[in-house]
Amino acid sequence: MTAWTLNTVLYGIELVATLAFALSGVIEASRRKLDAVGVVVVAGLAAFGGGTLRDVLLDRRPFFWVLHTELLWAVLILGIVAMLFMRRRHLEPTERAMQWPDAVGMGLFSASGTQISLAMGQPALVAVVLGMVTAVFGGVLRDIVCNDIPKVFRDHRPYAVFAFAGGWVLVGLDQAGVPPWLGLLAAASVATLLRLLAMWRNWKIPAWRVNT
Amino acid sequence: MTAWTLNTVLYGIELVATLAFALSGVIEASRRKLDAVGVVVVAGLAAFGGGTLRDVLLDRRPFFWVLHTELLWAVLILGIVAMLFMRRRHLEPTERAMQWPDAVGMGLFSASGTQISLAMGQPALVAVVLGMVTAVFGGVLRDIVCNDIPKVFRDHRPYAVFAFAGGWVLVGLDQAGVPPWLGLLAAASVATLLRLLAMWRNWKIPAWRVNT
Amino acid sequence: MTAWTLNTVLYGIELVATLAFALSGVIEASRRKLDAVGVVVVAGLAAFGGGTLRDVLLDRRPFFWVLHTELLWAVLILGIVAMLFMRRRHLEPTERAMQWPDAVGMGLFSASGTQISLAMGQPALVAVVLGMVTAVFGGVLRDIVCNDIPKVFRDHRPYAVFAFAGGWVLVGLDQAGVPPWLGLLAAASVATLLRLLAMWRNWKIPAWRVNT
Repeated sequence: MTAWTLNTVLYGIELVATLAFALSGVIEASRRKLDAVGVVVVAGLAAFGGGTLRDVLLDRRPFFWVLHTELLWAVLILGIVAMLFMRRRHLEPTERAMQWPDAVGMGLFSASGTQISLAMGQPALVAVVLGMVTAVFGGVLRDIVCNDIPKVFRDHRPYAVFAFAGGWVLVGLDQAGVPPWLGLLAAASVATLLRLLAMWRNWKIPAWRVNT
Repeated sequence: MTAWTLNTVLYGIELVATLAFALSGVIEASRRKLDAVGVVVVAGLAAFGGGTLRDVLLDRRPFFWVLHTELLWAVLILGIVAMLFMRRRHLEPTERAMQWPDAVGMGLFSASGTQISLAMGQPALVAVVLGMVTAVFGGVLRDIVCNDIPKVFRDHRPYAVFAFAGGWVLVGLDQAGVPPWLGLLAAASVATLLRLLAMWRNWKIPAWRVNT
Repeated sequence: MTAWTLNTVLYGIELVATLAFALSGVIEASRRKLDAVGVVVVAGLAAFGGGTLRDVLLDRRPFFWVLHTELLWAVLILGIVAMLFMRRRHLEPTERAMQWPDAVGMGLFSASGTQISLAMGQPALVAVVLGMVTAVFGGVLRDIVCNDIPKVFRDHRPYAVFAFAGGWVLVGLDQAGVPPWLGLLAAASVATLLRLLAMWRNWKIPAWRVNT
């Protein structure tokens, strides 16, 4: 029963995170005026890049998108529907519009990536680093392919730090004996909310050099 | 006998695709005025990038270029010979000259990548996606390293779509009971010829936004 | 006893190479005025990128930084200390300052990568190529993330060639019956010293085209 709850929560989190990153990819690719194929490819890279790198680093097969091929179809359909919708409404998405789904995907993947790494017996620091890689890499691919400096390195508001923090929340709750599914939800929420707060309040990482 | 035929055809296709991509790398690197070492490195990335990523994603070892180290030597020699030849003739290759071997490599790798994935028991959609990754990734690496937006995202003529189509041709013929070696040749030909047609007739992917 | 010596030398080489590349990452990221998080991330990519790709290609788990998590802490601390030090002294590092640790990391990783590949039963050419990948990839990631054409392709002074040469020195000494730990030290020294010589004497790779 607990295993079933954990697996359901984990799958739900990966599903929402995948769709959120796919949406961020659609928005970014459409801002860059890529053609229809480019939009779907960028959505796919953003959605599956982080989790695939995590699975390669953990030597975990089959990949989550091979086990759940419905995710491939979901991203394909989401890409097409989002394109038609934006075209109908003559929407010109802003960079800010892209950051909302990006924040959700980052927060959720940092929790699920850390949880999966812990469950495969990695030490805490390694699990947190792998969670951060899962959370960040899809967005990095999306930005590189759109010929942009990855936002994670460019945006002076904190980003990767919150993925790191979300991972440590999960590790801490796990050590404290909190049920894993609850820890997952808490860690995902903390990472996502911190990022949304940082966007809203325009938090800056303190500059480390006086003369910049 | 059939297994022998299949393996021979498969090896032949991978050999030709590897050399074609290596040639596209030599041409692109020479257009960018890289030095001699850079030319050989870019040729190697273009030739081995897609197949290596496919083998990593399939967890398939040894890599095709470890099993067949003669491919490493072939690419090294092709790089040097092509450089000397272009220097002798004072050739200044155009972007178009690069697209010919690129189309051949893309078509052939899409068929071989899909076939190898199917043979390792992947579901059809996953096999086709992995075939597309094999076909596209070497060229993406080549373009990124030459500091270019990858042609697959920039060229508004269809490219990745034909790799996708070639994969489905292979799956369809496989389901129809056609011998695998024949399906391989058919799928490779379809993907390559579609791309050559698109280059010749200047087909465009329909713009998905009115105001672009 | 010999195995113990070899493992100690190998670990020492990987430790020094990791810290050297981390330092090159800190310098490069600070030159690009990245924020504090960006500096640590770039240091980590430079330090762990090459070895991780090597381990993925060799299907070697756990990764060297999972076996030795003290390396993760060391890079984190080095990043913070180096930032504070440069800030205190108002140091503005030059590109040349970055090339010193980069040369050390390249030379050491080319030897250790080749040795590890040989020990896992790879043929000589494959081992040398994997050693070169180990030596070069961390720096490539560092440069790409800083939105730079990777120095390995841009710097007309030889670089990858010396990683290649270092690998062949190791293979040759191994064939000649020299103890592996001694071969490691010799190959690492040869590759590093050649690169430092090339920087000092400003060696150029012969241009392969007359009209460039």
